[in-house]
Amino acid sequence: MTSIPQTPRTTLKRLPQRGSHDRELINRILDEGFICHVGFIIDGQPVVIPTGYARAGDNLFIHGSQASRMLRRLADAIDVCVTITLIDGLVLARSAFHHSMNYRSVVVFGRATAIDHQAEKFRALRILSEHIIPGRWAEVREPSDRELQLTTVLSLPLAEASAKIRTGPPLDDEADYDLPVWAGVIPLRMIAEAPIADPRLPSSILVSKYASEYERGNIRKA
Amino acid sequence: MTSIPQTPRTTLKRLPQRGSHDRELINRILDEGFICHVGFIIDGQPVVIPTGYARAGDNLFIHGSQASRMLRRLADAIDVCVTITLIDGLVLARSAFHHSMNYRSVVVFGRATAIDHQAEKFRALRILSEHIIPGRWAEVREPSDRELQLTTVLSLPLAEASAKIRTGPPLDDEADYDLPVWAGVIPLRMIAEAPIADPRLPSSILVSKYASEYERGNIRKA
Repeated sequence: MTSIPQTPRTTLKRLPQRGSHDRELINRILDEGFICHVGFIIDGQPVVIPTGYARAGDNLFIHGSQASRMLRRLADAIDVCVTITLIDGLVLARSAFHHSMNYRSVVVFGRATAIDHQAEKFRALRILSEHIIPGRWAEVREPSDRELQLTTVLSLPLAEASAKIRTGPPLDDEADYDLPVWAGVIPLRMIAEAPIADPRLPSSILVSKYASEYERGNIRKA
Repeated sequence: MTSIPQTPRTTLKRLPQRGSHDRELINRILDEGFICHVGFIIDGQPVVIPTGYARAGDNLFIHGSQASRMLRRLADAIDVCVTITLIDGLVLARSAFHHSMNYRSVVVFGRATAIDHQAEKFRALRILSEHIIPGRWAEVREPSDRELQLTTVLSLPLAEASAKIRTGPPLDDEADYDLPVWAGVIPLRMIAEAPIADPRLPSSILVSKYASEYERGNIRKA
């Protein structure tokens, strides 16, 4: 089990029992999620944008078709903070104060660089696609050279990362356990519903199993 | 229908058809979500942290129990970017290049200030609680003066905000529509599963309907 070095930025100041630099745990959270929030600075202002990602070994690949302005900026190797958050439940305590959420999150600090080499970019796009929809890549038209040029993929090393987790029942003040108030957790999870065919799709083309039975991590079939 | 003034920061450079400054639309997205990603700058570095929020009229209340260091920093009225993202589906196109996601997101720029007045903070916590679990506040022990002191709530004006949305089927290159590849959308949504009682809860205390039938926006009962 590998551990990521703890730095001042990733050292939790509060509730340290919820924090972890355990690399296996960080990887599990990163591999379950597929949306990250990328924070960076433009003209002295913080900007936070959601986008897709995939982990490839010790790097996070960040996808760019819908955030090109952002990704061009990030490709200058400026500092970024990438945060992944999985919400697992609402924690209902007996007091308003101790209400909480169960969640798993990862925060990565570092400098992202653009993947410029065409073959590497192609490989990175396949990794991103297979991370988000395993099985899809083999069926679709692969990116052309021009499409590759139009696509930005950034790579961010997982050198400075930490995970934060809350699980389990509420933790109330001891005196409050006598209150006649229901307490516990409402579990939340994502589900994938039945795929909706494109209106222009011929009815002879059937949906593949990876789509009709899409599941990943905490996401189940409806 | 009110519109929020468009500023250089909230003007979309790409795909402007997906962007909106329509206040009603922004409010609907904000009222459906309950987790935001707050971006701010500490020592020249971007930091992105997830936390709960609620909209109260023309302000976003940001909750603080688990991010006090962050929230103390934000209370200095530094610039923040708060992003809310709701994922609605995976968009499977015939080409790898045109794969996308259906989503609704809001980005708010501004300076947050701490709510210091005890009565106002109490009201803000009730609004946060009722936003996330409507009906809960009336059943639980209310915050004590000391708990109020330990809690930070920030208020961020919704003066500079924009929404971005993608809906509907994939948009493929015209030539690709002839490919024998399934295309369409895998809808994703959150569900609330059956509540799990705290192990210390007496079995005589039954769960309330707001918890056993928890639903909100895109979140349905399992």
